[in-house]
Amino acid sequence: MFRPEIKVIDCTVRDGGLMNKWQFTDKFVRNVYNSLAAAGVDYMEIGYLSSESAFSRDEFGPWKFCAEKDLQRIIGKDEKKIKLSAMADIGRIEHDDIPLKSESSLDMIRVACYVHQVDAAIALAHHCMDKGYEATINLMAVSTVGLRDLNEALEDLSKSRVPIIYLVDSFGAFYSEDIDTLAAKYFERLPGKTIGIHCHNNQQLAFANTIAGIINGINFLDATLYGIGRGAGNCTLELLMSFLKNPKFKVRPLIECIEKEIFPWAQKIDWGYSIPYMVTGVLNQHPRAAMACMESEDKEKVTEFYDKVASATETL
Amino acid sequence: MFRPEIKVIDCTVRDGGLMNKWQFTDKFVRNVYNSLAAAGVDYMEIGYLSSESAFSRDEFGPWKFCAEKDLQRIIGKDEKKIKLSAMADIGRIEHDDIPLKSESSLDMIRVACYVHQVDAAIALAHHCMDKGYEATINLMAVSTVGLRDLNEALEDLSKSRVPIIYLVDSFGAFYSEDIDTLAAKYFERLPGKTIGIHCHNNQQLAFANTIAGIINGINFLDATLYGIGRGAGNCTLELLMSFLKNPKFKVRPLIECIEKEIFPWAQKIDWGYSIPYMVTGVLNQHPRAAMACMESEDKEKVTEFYDKVASATETL
Repeated sequence: MFRPEIKVIDCTVRDGGLMNKWQFTDKFVRNVYNSLAAAGVDYMEIGYLSSESAFSRDEFGPWKFCAEKDLQRIIGKDEKKIKLSAMADIGRIEHDDIPLKSESSLDMIRVACYVHQVDAAIALAHHCMDKGYEATINLMAVSTVGLRDLNEALEDLSKSRVPIIYLVDSFGAFYSEDIDTLAAKYFERLPGKTIGIHCHNNQQLAFANTIAGIINGINFLDATLYGIGRGAGNCTLELLMSFLKNPKFKVRPLIECIEKEIFPWAQKIDWGYSIPYMVTGVLNQHPRAAMACMESEDKEKVTEFYDKVASATETL
Repeated sequence: MFRPEIKVIDCTVRDGGLMNKWQFTDKFVRNVYNSLAAAGVDYMEIGYLSSESAFSRDEFGPWKFCAEKDLQRIIGKDEKKIKLSAMADIGRIEHDDIPLKSESSLDMIRVACYVHQVDAAIALAHHCMDKGYEATINLMAVSTVGLRDLNEALEDLSKSRVPIIYLVDSFGAFYSEDIDTLAAKYFERLPGKTIGIHCHNNQQLAFANTIAGIINGINFLDATLYGIGRGAGNCTLELLMSFLKNPKFKVRPLIECIEKEIFPWAQKIDWGYSIPYMVTGVLNQHPRAAMACMESEDKEKVTEFYDKVASATETL
């Protein structure tokens, strides 16, 4: 599949950081940055944009904040090699704390929101655009949103100036047929917008659903090295880049970075397919119960976990 | 997706045994057998049918042979709870060593062959059918078969009496669009036959490609508990059973069996997604080089592995 409009956004540091409070070393982030640039990845999402007053640097690493001083340590003195993105959650960043684009190394700000926050998200995204950034809105957890609410949110987004809207499978609950259905709806309700996709791997479908998105015309594609990310993790970047036949994409720098930087983290934090994440994915639930299970001593007591989570339903 | 014609074939012991020479204890096999029956799985493929003269029981466990005495230890004195299947490789079982169905607890024999062995496979499958068994032919490694050879093989299969023909992604090389294309060809060239699918997970697509097969009308579906199997493993049974909305299927007995029987094996043998398997899958190669790497002390030297395997190509 070669389509020049396709852009790949690596979320290794941002989504992987959800598992370690963004406590990556500068060396890690610099190696990821250099590898992504060498591989021809279009954007590196380097973390979250958060107000320093809202979170403590004692608890959270630098990529919870993405201050210009943090970015500068990674970029160094050379010219920036790859576009940089940061994610902003509604309520965790004051508009006034976002610098002008001319004073920042960031190129794009992606605003993540739930359906009831769409108005605030549009306001924040417009604010970022007015400061000079590219902007997207990533509408999370749509697998739990009712049809009328979704239609209203898409209606509001269609009237906004925000050019890129993401289809997000926060819970890893979607099958490819869901992607077909929702992509068709997004394109119908958001004429003229670019659509992006961000998938989770609870049912081992993150890569497959990203491909389904591509087939449906989605052009902004999220992935992470070796799938690192919250819970079951994300679409793996190395698989996605192998699938995309764009000659500018190289896989070898990604494999080298996985060997050097990701394997050591795989010893320390647990992401990827496991029964607790599978259960919350199948049941279309937030992975928080599964994450608590995986962080406990009972992580292999998966029947007990299943009984607890599924007890109120008969759907499995 | 509920379609009453769909049959699920668990290959946990047969395909998982490729990783440990079928050295599963009777307790393991009995617990898998009981769990599959409780879950409503249609067939349990309990191993390979091999001539005792061709392999030694000192080296290989009982499920390399599936002798009636082995099967009896699992079934016990109660009525058989689930249909049993065994796989037969061309050249590893003498026709005369296959008992009559009336003297065996097996219900189905699945003949695995490469494209140049189709004639021998048809002869063996007919022989099994004449002895009273259900039979399938599983045409392996079609991702490497040229169009004319494939058409000829399908022509021969269409003329046979064998009712079920499998589409097999031995190398984990296929994308869903390949499944669409090949399933259409199989249905066109094999009128009246039932089609099955067996996928490997090198690119994290085994489950997704099985779903693609279902959407294309494929009704015999292979899977294993927690994906256990050669190399990157198989379509996971617990995900497949959750996807299929047939009310007779239960997921809980599978999760319980994974906790009790599969987790301990996950400590001892390595299957599932990893970079070496990903590389051979993307390059459409037999996983043997990746398996050798994964069994060596260099299993994390994945850049070196990539350079070695990809050096003759420019495809990654």
